[in-house]
Amino acid sequence: MAAEERQGQLLKPPGALGRLEALAIWLAGCTGDPRPSVRARVVVAAADHGVAFEEGVSAYPPAVTGQMLAALRGGQAAIGALAREADVELRVVDAGVRGEGGDFAPSANLAREPALSVEATARAVDLGRALAAEAAADGITVLAGGEMGIGNTTPATCLAAWLTGRPAAELVGPGTGLDAGGLARKAAVVERALALHGPELHGPLGALRRLGGGEIAVLCGLALGAGEQGLAYVCDGLIATAAAAVAAQLEPDLRPRLLAGHRSPEPGHAALLEHLALDPVLDLGMRLGEGSGAVAAVSVLRLACAAHDGMATFSEAGVAGPTD
Amino acid sequence: MAAEERQGQLLKPPGALGRLEALAIWLAGCTGDPRPSVRARVVVAAADHGVAFEEGVSAYPPAVTGQMLAALRGGQAAIGALAREADVELRVVDAGVRGEGGDFAPSANLAREPALSVEATARAVDLGRALAAEAAADGITVLAGGEMGIGNTTPATCLAAWLTGRPAAELVGPGTGLDAGGLARKAAVVERALALHGPELHGPLGALRRLGGGEIAVLCGLALGAGEQGLAYVCDGLIATAAAAVAAQLEPDLRPRLLAGHRSPEPGHAALLEHLALDPVLDLGMRLGEGSGAVAAVSVLRLACAAHDGMATFSEAGVAGPTD
Repeated sequence: MAAEERQGQLLKPPGALGRLEALAIWLAGCTGDPRPSVRARVVVAAADHGVAFEEGVSAYPPAVTGQMLAALRGGQAAIGALAREADVELRVVDAGVRGEGGDFAPSANLAREPALSVEATARAVDLGRALAAEAAADGITVLAGGEMGIGNTTPATCLAAWLTGRPAAELVGPGTGLDAGGLARKAAVVERALALHGPELHGPLGALRRLGGGEIAVLCGLALGAGEQGLAYVCDGLIATAAAAVAAQLEPDLRPRLLAGHRSPEPGHAALLEHLALDPVLDLGMRLGEGSGAVAAVSVLRLACAAHDGMATFSEAGVAGPTD
Repeated sequence: MAAEERQGQLLKPPGALGRLEALAIWLAGCTGDPRPSVRARVVVAAADHGVAFEEGVSAYPPAVTGQMLAALRGGQAAIGALAREADVELRVVDAGVRGEGGDFAPSANLAREPALSVEATARAVDLGRALAAEAAADGITVLAGGEMGIGNTTPATCLAAWLTGRPAAELVGPGTGLDAGGLARKAAVVERALALHGPELHGPLGALRRLGGGEIAVLCGLALGAGEQGLAYVCDGLIATAAAAVAAQLEPDLRPRLLAGHRSPEPGHAALLEHLALDPVLDLGMRLGEGSGAVAAVSVLRLACAAHDGMATFSEAGVAGPTD
């Protein structure tokens, strides 16, 4: 491939830029441009979850989702500050926040019934796909997905358990900061949901609908759309990676376009990265969501492309190679 | 501390930005500014090494150092492209490149005699300190050190062995790409140098003079100067970290100002990070030097400060906390 050949000619020992070389070659492969540039957008989808209202699976009250939606839109949240610094466009989407009067209702309590209706699932996935098409039309080359939703590590952990076949107890983590009692309650809820829905899932779309949530379905569609539009797609933490993993189950050709932005301390995230065979770019103990880890990785991707494009070759610089 | 208190009030679960929070608090501590900003410069020192001319310890011919000095000055090397992208100022210093007619001669072959004279060592350290003072006068808050010099993983590995007390065979790595035969030759050279100079070292300055080199002495001075000037200092890979470790041995108060930009695959680098108890920001398999890993980490530091400074607090955004 032209990008790989170019890396071999650049003014450095072969392989000396490590992952930066691999990232530039990967983006070249995604975009078909041997000297790719990073024009990035992060879509942050927010939603409320019945399981958070009814089962006490989060350290924060559910009202925080709506309050955070306003902060996300106003650029006051972490992702606002990070996206400005990393020169990543930010789009915020209401995928079912209570009291917002948006196009989506909060998900139902997945411990008792399917989280989403068939119709809402399809509509949310289509919204994600449309957002990817819009990004492609705007000249974006790198799309990232982020989320906000009190309680949403619970559906994501359900999906991780279903995708990896690993027991809930191995996968549940503290999310925004559950104590030991909360963690046990959350594990029990995940187990109950898997027992209730397991026989009815019938594949990834069924899992997304019964065990997921509005923002997870939008992000699943966003990843699918990235594949359809020929974009690179950067996964964030547990929730966004669960959505991308469902998308890759639906469409295996998507997998080479996925980049794991970072490794979160949530055990379910590690399991999903292993399941997808993705090696995260960053490992900084980040566990916020909002696309924060994905956007941080975009900065590294920019450095990779800057070196790939901006360095001289040995012959341009008139420098001898090892065999000269 | 004010920066730590601010992190606790920002619109996110406590600790959810992981290392980004710690980095902002660290830079606040270095600069005394509770909302610190990153104004960064990387000093790349280049030098030739007698041991490379005489002992065959590198995969590249020594003439490459001079050719690379020109490429570094012209912004054509990797660090040129990376520093432009990361908005880091680049300064290139001749610390003993053969044929340049600069203020420093190449180092002597440390396998046979001291690498530097007492006078050249002092002058190189002073140059580094002066460069740090100049950076401080220019309003720089974050200083990074990089290097270029064919053969310079050999002196750096000697210093790593002296500093950590570990055997040469555990610490030698392939540098720019030695094969197995070259690696064995390099290990033997390191052992010979340690046996020859060991009894004469008399502390860190003696080790720097006998086992080091021009660029290593300049970077040792640069790190010392960063401490004197109240700057933060980002270490790059094996060679730059060896220089910073000698500086920290000379001046233990420097240690809290040191950040390990990344982890290189050179085994001597891992040993030095452990010796200094530094946890690298990035682990991307980079092994180029030139300050490339340090500058990549500056991008992460920028994100950390952007979140620290640019996010709203819970009360500013009107969002409920976990106990509300």
